[in-house]
Amino acid sequence: MTKQQKPSKSARQRLAANIRYLRSQQKLSQEALADLVGLHRTYVGSVERSERNVSLDNVERLAATLGVDITALLAEDLANKPNPAPDSRT
Amino acid sequence: MTKQQKPSKSARQRLAANIRYLRSQQKLSQEALADLVGLHRTYVGSVERSERNVSLDNVERLAATLGVDITALLAEDLANKPNPAPDSRT
Repeated sequence: MTKQQKPSKSARQRLAANIRYLRSQQKLSQEALADLVGLHRTYVGSVERSERNVSLDNVERLAATLGVDITALLAEDLANKPNPAPDSRT
Repeated sequence: MTKQQKPSKSARQRLAANIRYLRSQQKLSQEALADLVGLHRTYVGSVERSERNVSLDNVERLAATLGVDITALLAEDLANKPNPAPDSRT
């Protein structure tokens, strides 16, 4: 009666990796992203270290700012998916 | 330079609709789900009314308890996707 295999990464770890990936893809510093989202740079840093239990509203704001759906920002392995962001460059 | 169309439902609304859908599919009351997740019944109620800015850790716990990936629990239209949950019945 197993329902589902446990994902290899926690939601926090997925979020951290995907933000870091999209941010570098879009050539944004932590500070630049923080400014765009309206959060503090240290907040973004703590999210990227999986230290922070981010609220759903802030995950949504981060996704909107990075130009992806919230489900992409929480995907297991976004960096290896084809065309993860609408404005990705090859 | 639009990055992405705004989704028609907010993340809170998606979460609310999907929890309600999976909970009823699995014939769980709000109280039963709350007990399984280790949250209070009124908390689950407020999530299903989109009133609560749920933390990522709790979204993850809800997803694990309902047997879906966190990305499914935040999908735009889970109820219309084929086989959303591993133990879904036709």
